[in-house]
This record gives sequence, C-alpha cells and structure tokens, in this order.
Amino acid sequence: MTIHEAARMLSAMDNVYILTHRRPDGDTLGSAAGLCVGLRALGKKSYVMPNPEITPRYEPFIAPYTSGDTARLEEAVLVSVDIATPDLLPTVYRSLADHVRLSIDHHPTNTLFGADNCVVPNSASTGEVVYDILLELGVPMTAELALPLYLAVSTDTGCFRYSNTTAHTHRVAAHLMETGIDFAAINREMFENKTRRRIRIEALVFDSMDFLYNGTVAVACITQKMIAETGASEDDIDNMSALPRRIDGVDIGVVIKEQTDGVCKVSMRSSQKYEVNRICALLGGGGHLRAAGCQVPGTGEEAKRAVLEAIRQYLSA
Amino acid sequence: MTIHEAARMLSAMDNVYILTHRRPDGDTLGSAAGLCVGLRALGKKSYVMPNPEITPRYEPFIAPYTSGDTARLEEAVLVSVDIATPDLLPTVYRSLADHVRLSIDHHPTNTLFGADNCVVPNSASTGEVVYDILLELGVPMTAELALPLYLAVSTDTGCFRYSNTTAHTHRVAAHLMETGIDFAAINREMFENKTRRRIRIEALVFDSMDFLYNGTVAVACITQKMIAETGASEDDIDNMSALPRRIDGVDIGVVIKEQTDGVCKVSMRSSQKYEVNRICALLGGGGHLRAAGCQVPGTGEEAKRAVLEAIRQYLSA
Repeated sequence: MTIHEAARMLSAMDNVYILTHRRPDGDTLGSAAGLCVGLRALGKKSYVMPNPEITPRYEPFIAPYTSGDTARLEEAVLVSVDIATPDLLPTVYRSLADHVRLSIDHHPTNTLFGADNCVVPNSASTGEVVYDILLELGVPMTAELALPLYLAVSTDTGCFRYSNTTAHTHRVAAHLMETGIDFAAINREMFENKTRRRIRIEALVFDSMDFLYNGTVAVACITQKMIAETGASEDDIDNMSALPRRIDGVDIGVVIKEQTDGVCKVSMRSSQKYEVNRICALLGGGGHLRAAGCQVPGTGEEAKRAVLEAIRQYLSA
Repeated sequence: MTIHEAARMLSAMDNVYILTHRRPDGDTLGSAAGLCVGLRALGKKSYVMPNPEITPRYEPFIAPYTSGDTARLEEAVLVSVDIATPDLLPTVYRSLADHVRLSIDHHPTNTLFGADNCVVPNSASTGEVVYDILLELGVPMTAELALPLYLAVSTDTGCFRYSNTTAHTHRVAAHLMETGIDFAAINREMFENKTRRRIRIEALVFDSMDFLYNGTVAVACITQKMIAETGASEDDIDNMSALPRRIDGVDIGVVIKEQTDGVCKVSMRSSQKYEVNRICALLGGGGHLRAAGCQVPGTGEEAKRAVLEAIRQYLSA
C-alpha cells in the first residue's frame, strides 16, 4: 500500500488506537505520538495504547497521547507503527494481532500481518513514513507534531550517523527543525547524556570484551552480576548493541545480555562486509542485514559459546 | 561581504592557496579541500597549504590537494577558511596574516583580518559557507566535492546533534549525500570509532572528574601521566572537551589538558544557561557562547584552581 493509499485510508478512519512494539524505542513511540497528533489535527479521536515496557526517558514524548481507556477497544480502529511481526507486540496486546487494520512500518521483514500494510523498506525510520502520510493528508507542521517525529527520525538513524540515513531523512529533519523544536535537547538526552551508572557499566562491558578473528569480531557480555554491581537500570543498559562496533577494526559486534529469566538476548551489528541476520537466523533470530538479534537460553557464557559457533559456521560458509 | 560578493571575488582569482587553522579540525580541513575542489572545477589552480599539525585521521581528506610547493607564495592569492584570528594560523604561517586576501568563516569572533571577509556567524560550519559560495559559482556537485564538505558540516555539528545545527545544515547534507558518498564511513571514523587506548584514557578522565555546584559543574583533567600510562596519541585525546557535559545534570563542563610546555589548554562547554566565553575571558581566552577555551600556565592541578576561581567569579556575578 502506497503513502497515498495509506493516507486515504486514514482519512476515512476515526477513533484510531495506535500500537507500539515491545521494548519500545524512539521510532515506534515517536511515530505513534506523531501519528496521534496528526490525526487529532484532522479532528479525529486518536490515542496511543499504553506500552507497559516504556522506559522513563521516553515518557514525556508519549504521555500526552496515551489512553488507559482501552475498555471499548472493539469499537476502535487499530494501527500499528514500526512493528514488523505480531510477536513484537507487547505481550498484553498479542491477541490483537489479527485486528490490526493498518500496519505502518519500514522493516523489510514486516510480515504484512495488518489487514492493510504500508511498509517502506528503504525508509530509515517509520517516523519518515508517518511524516509522508501526514503531509499527504495536509496536516500542518507544528512544533507538537515535529517533536515526536524528530525523536523517531533521529533515534533510528543514530542521529543521522548510520548508513540507513537518506537525503529524505535530512530533508524531513530540516522541515521539522523549522518549527523551532529544541532538537538539541532531544539529541543530548538520547545520544549524549549518560548517568554515572551507565559510564561504569560501559567500562565493565569494554573490559569484558573478547576479540576474535584478528580483532574483526568482538563479543561483549552484560551479566546480571554487572547490573547488580553498578545498580544500572533498564535505561542505563539500553542501546549497548552498538558498543563493540565502535572499536577500531571490529566488523561484527555482538552484545549478549543475561536476562532474569535464564534466557540471553543477543544483538549483532556489522559493517557492510557481513550480514548478521544470517548469523542470527542460525540461532532462530533475524532482523536487518547489519543489525539483527536472537534469544539464546543459558547463562551469558553458554550463550557466548552458541554465538561463537554460529559465527564460525557463517564465516566458514 | 556576502556569499554573492565572495563568489564574484573568487571567480576573478587564480592560483589560490588555502590556509587552515592550527590544531586543524574537520571543518577547517573539509572546507579547504572542498574550496580547492570547487576552484579546480572552475579551471583554476588551487592548493591547500600543508598544515604541520594535521592528525592522521584527516590526512586522506586533504592529501590530494596539499602542495608542498610554497616557494612562490608571493604570486599566490591567500584564502583562509574557518580561521577566526591571525594567531590561530599555524605558527609557520603567522607572518602571512597580513596577506590573507579573503577570510571565509562562521565564527562570530572573526577579527576580519582578511583584506575582505565573508563571515556568516549563524552558519553551523564554515563548510556550509563554502558550499553556498561554490553553488553560487555554479560548481557542479560531485562526490569529490561532497566528501570534504560533508566532513566539515558533520564534524562541526557533532553529526547534526548540537544546537548550532540548522535546517540549512540538513538541506546541505541531503544534497551532498545524493552524490553517493560513504557518509556513514566518515561518521563512523569521526564519531564512533575509538581505539582501545582512547577507551582507556576516557575511563581515566571520567574517574578523575570533579563535580561541583550540585553536580552542575564538572571539571576533568588530562595529565601527561595519563597520556604516558595509556600510550594515547594526539588523535586519541582529541575531542575530549565534550565528555563532562555528557553526564546527566552537568551544565558547565571543563577539560584541562596538560601540555608538554608547562601550559594547560582549557576547554569549556555549557548548556544554554551559561556563557562560557565569559568565564574563559577571565582567563585571557574566548570563543563561542557555549564552547570556549583558554590557556593557563602551570600543572593540571594549578590550572584547575585558576579555572575554579574564574567559574566562582562568573557564577557570583
């Protein structure tokens, strides 16, 4: 479904409830808040469904649009943003997967689980897709709209650093900035500000890092012990996935995080030379070519062995 | 002098030698290389003057345009880029200050030392000023031109993070990216890649940091001892100035670096609440409102005492 078709569909909707993905990031939350602001500007009733896994840094962006009133959900039209597959819905909403009217996304792995789907895989962020749809709908650009959309666009491109950034991304950012939003405060909060706990746990993660294959592969592990020692919160250990790749010469960077449930969350990033979704697929996961993930049962050490074996298989194939 | 006037002046020039500032950064070097590429595209002879203080990470950007042949300099037209005052010229070129025909810059503190001066203080980078001038001259955008200009624009805005970034900055970036340059590689090299030595010295700097005034002021010191212990190179300790301000709640961040000559280099960054050029002015320095510097004689500890006294004076005024 094109931007134009999605816009037409939305223009005919009312009472729109917007779903965000589990472990929500700036793109899903910013896209949801932006879409909500845009639909309200068109005189429609719209809410963002509360996300039980939201972390404090994102709350100010989404709080004004969240409704706890999900009692009469059957009367609402459900739209999902930035959700590639039904199992990425927050657990409490898993049963709603079959009732999503429109899925707006940019992940090439989107399973088209919505009744209709507007997926733009070459878009750096879902925020840009929402921007294009709202402009097509004639929604005027305001600071209230620009703020969450900037959050979405900026966070999903690592503040315009990563290779997914396009000329379109920059032109969208230029337009959003003209409303006078304090984008530097968003960037500071999302990319620069660190708590002293974060700085301590980062130092531990760097210290624990294993370097293999001539320093081209780096594997870090965040253990429950490190988390306990530093008193790090969920926000403090968010976004660690990019750390190993920041070290000179590292092409494949892996971060293994021990969860409290005996399962490790593994995220992989790579340079253009490799496709880490193929490594993660060997472990039952998936994702983008250069940023993928999987879950591996066991302790951090056990997960590391499984990951190293998968990397060995991939590199020798 | 306007962009239009500077363009007209350059169009009448030939044999243009371009000067960059001491301790050269991405903006001065990228602007110089970009201007050189643009002038050559117009059929002119142009070179970037070799900068004795250039660090290895920048060399690939500038090497193709540097000329060591400065013997017949009196026949050349001198243009400076991103140089605010004559004493920011590399020491070997200090005597050329009075012979600068055109100074292209974005620093509001530019002393207009050129015979003519094109200074655009609201521009985030000198790279954007050079971009505007070259477009005015009808220079076609190519990847060779876009690469150094992207370096300039991206590095001087912290990759579009800082409050100096404008909508114009983003539109320039969009245009440059359309040439297909590997901008992500530049950003990775400039903003993400760290040597393991850099990671170690960063950890020492964070550990040594003093927090004052309820955690709103943070003062770090890089001693010669730390540099020796970690084996850090000049590149490794480049760009430390922003570190203290990355910690939650810090409004004024100071980094004091012991030099080998018994003088400390002090750099200050602040939030919108303060004007650090006023603090640096108390110590004989200056700069932008939110990013300024000065030199203080003595050891790191001695410099720290002088800095703290200046901060106390400023805050109590």
